Amino acid sequence: MSAPSRPFLTVGVNSTGYHGQSWKMGSPPDRFLDIGYYRRIAEIAHEAVFDGLFLSDHPALQEDGTSRPLHSLDPLILFSALAEAVPDIGLILTASTAFNSPYNLARRLATLDLISGGRAGWNAVSSFNPRVAANFGTAPIADHDVRYRRTEEFLQVVKRLWGSWRPDAVVGDGLLWTSDAITQLNHHGEFFDVRGPLNVPVSPQGHPVIAQAGGSQQGRRIAALYGEIIYTAQLGKASAARFTAGIKAAARQAGRPPEAVKVLPGLVPIVGSTAAEAERRYQQLVASGGVTEDEIVTLARRLDLDPESLDLDAPLTEEQKQPKPGRVAPEGFFNAIVDLAQDEGLTVRQLARRVEGGHRLVVGTPDEVAEAIADWWRDGAVDGFTLQPAVLPDDLTVFADEVVPLLRKHAGFPSRYAEPTLRERFDLPFPTFAPRTQKFARSTEGRSHD
Amino acid sequence: MSAPSRPFLTVGVNSTGYHGQSWKMGSPPDRFLDIGYYRRIAEIAHEAVFDGLFLSDHPALQEDGTSRPLHSLDPLILFSALAEAVPDIGLILTASTAFNSPYNLARRLATLDLISGGRAGWNAVSSFNPRVAANFGTAPIADHDVRYRRTEEFLQVVKRLWGSWRPDAVVGDGLLWTSDAITQLNHHGEFFDVRGPLNVPVSPQGHPVIAQAGGSQQGRRIAALYGEIIYTAQLGKASAARFTAGIKAAARQAGRPPEAVKVLPGLVPIVGSTAAEAERRYQQLVASGGVTEDEIVTLARRLDLDPESLDLDAPLTEEQKQPKPGRVAPEGFFNAIVDLAQDEGLTVRQLARRVEGGHRLVVGTPDEVAEAIADWWRDGAVDGFTLQPAVLPDDLTVFADEVVPLLRKHAGFPSRYAEPTLRERFDLPFPTFAPRTQKFARSTEGRSHD
Repeated sequence: MSAPSRPFLTVGVNSTGYHGQSWKMGSPPDRFLDIGYYRRIAEIAHEAVFDGLFLSDHPALQEDGTSRPLHSLDPLILFSALAEAVPDIGLILTASTAFNSPYNLARRLATLDLISGGRAGWNAVSSFNPRVAANFGTAPIADHDVRYRRTEEFLQVVKRLWGSWRPDAVVGDGLLWTSDAITQLNHHGEFFDVRGPLNVPVSPQGHPVIAQAGGSQQGRRIAALYGEIIYTAQLGKASAARFTAGIKAAARQAGRPPEAVKVLPGLVPIVGSTAAEAERRYQQLVASGGVTEDEIVTLARRLDLDPESLDLDAPLTEEQKQPKPGRVAPEGFFNAIVDLAQDEGLTVRQLARRVEGGHRLVVGTPDEVAEAIADWWRDGAVDGFTLQPAVLPDDLTVFADEVVPLLRKHAGFPSRYAEPTLRERFDLPFPTFAPRTQKFARSTEGRSHD
Repeated sequence: MSAPSRPFLTVGVNSTGYHGQSWKMGSPPDRFLDIGYYRRIAEIAHEAVFDGLFLSDHPALQEDGTSRPLHSLDPLILFSALAEAVPDIGLILTASTAFNSPYNLARRLATLDLISGGRAGWNAVSSFNPRVAANFGTAPIADHDVRYRRTEEFLQVVKRLWGSWRPDAVVGDGLLWTSDAITQLNHHGEFFDVRGPLNVPVSPQGHPVIAQAGGSQQGRRIAALYGEIIYTAQLGKASAARFTAGIKAAARQAGRPPEAVKVLPGLVPIVGSTAAEAERRYQQLVASGGVTEDEIVTLARRLDLDPESLDLDAPLTEEQKQPKPGRVAPEGFFNAIVDLAQDEGLTVRQLARRVEGGHRLVVGTPDEVAEAIADWWRDGAVDGFTLQPAVLPDDLTVFADEVVPLLRKHAGFPSRYAEPTLRERFDLPFPTFAPRTQKFARSTEGRSHD
């Protein structure tokens, strides 16, 4: 697998940080409600030339006042505001195919894409949390297969809505647009009936970049068919390389070039000037959980196991590595941990030390963290990473100041934004209805940024 | 009815203007897709100290390439971006109770309210257009009563979600919030099942201001129960005074103080330095329709009548003033025209000259237009107006430059923003769960505006 010309980096900007206790480890504790705080994070990421900001989502309150709510402000609203506040950087947000309608969501994303000048990305998720479902009705959550069939039809409809205007439709000469440049869908499927066309023309990047994060078999199928950026939990280099090769092969089988899919697993960087300082910072994060066994409890939850059943200084047993019937932990996180345990023969204690909130944990000096990123990228195991800073903005600031310069020096990470759209920055193909050379709807001429 | 201390003014900022041909009467024709264009409009309105911007909506394409699409960019996305671009001014947007879910819409509006520092307003509409419905399924549109029952339950649920956090919930001292400060709804109604609580805390104005625009009997009932700003078509002063008195009496009957409801009918201002210049501008707008009888055709459409059946120099017949069975024109517009015809004994030709796109048309010098606004307000017939400039930004610029100074001089219109939130600007009561003196969630401290 040949590596892209440089690693891609996006950064998760949810709430006060990826760590549950991050609210009290930064200041002020309620900053997750302050648009000025998100503006500052976006500015730090923009100055460091990150490729994009990322927001996960979950439309329900996590009713635990000791942990920050990971999801509060609505991602569509927050990123629309940040589109005005900060130029260039990509804006990749999560929205559910279970609790939105295709027309409204296609239109809202297309609008964000237009007003941002082609910087929108959509992480399409098929929600399964009962607490979320209870905010949207009493029907039981559909089974896994039904949810994925619905997600696939939802994606088809949204893509057809985005393609319902030809890029040269808006003419403004006698007519505002020509009627043969817009197409009705008249879609009648298993889950949706949508007439179309969309009432928003094509954006400068054709349509928003589609991200995908499902770790199950059906999730990987949708990723191969539609995913342009893949979020995933990958804890070891060997399993990451297998995952990336598998997803790109599946894309090729679906008739897509393998470079049309970019794999960006999560990564939690804990950076210190010395190894000892990095370790102190890590222990501070662990201790802030309130109990020292917190990292083990978290690991056990990811594996659907009782923490008491784990022998900390032994590897996982074969039985512990089997998926449980009726499991509630997401499949992708479960598989990532089991793969790492298997590939590297780690004890439970060693395993916990490599995982934070389900993602790859790297604790070290700026050189060590930069090398942990560059190494996987150089060998083609990944296309880049999605950083999940433990405490925002602190851990992002340290990474931007100390690690990014090393990635510039050693891995070709850019020092300015050269491409106008997110699609071009990731070197992703333009949709066939809107090849790159076409005239697109006007967007952000005359902006007063920079 | 005593007049408020000054007239309120909001301005409709849809597309290229209220006039169907406005796209080619301003430049460039496709400016309705350009965020920079909306930013400029918002800045003009902000400089003139307008109370709010208003967006109507309709999630479907108007498939007529000779007319501008009145609705294209999604209002939630567009106003979230403008919240960052322009301070102070209110952001009142339309969203349908038929094609959104209460949880998502409550959350999105609450987020806009928080990030804008308490400037959001929601015009709750019960959609009935079959072209819209076809983008959301195949079910036939529910009948009028069912739609209004749904709208009423939707409003109840949204208000309970907005009230599911106590204003002092976020503490950040050991706990991020206290669990007794949040409330589950466990709502099970005719149309919705919603557990709650919302995952967004209370905004600086308690919750977004609720606007209402339905002209039917059920629409007026919802306005009396929930409406804080009422959009309406009122073409004559006498019928406006009756409407305003009626809606405020109904609010009082529902236990609300009459000043908790502000009535702001639409008004299309055509301003010229002289009466002759204003008349030329008006004739230019009429002629741009392509046929000179265009204003009559438009009037006939509002009345569900064949234009050929109208005697231009006679009043409407009694039969023509009766609602038709199976009518498609909105009830509010129909009633407004019939009321004006009745109250002032106008001929069809005179009627057409007083209406533009269903709203009150005022053609005149700056003095005449300012007096047309101040006169109705002084006599308590209205609380203010919602301007619908025919061509944007041109007609807004002229109004801001030439009429607003006269309203300052003669009607106490403000020359700066004195109140921090939209609710306080309109002198509307705070919700009981969040009285004005409470500590609200932090919002936009440290903004770099002004």
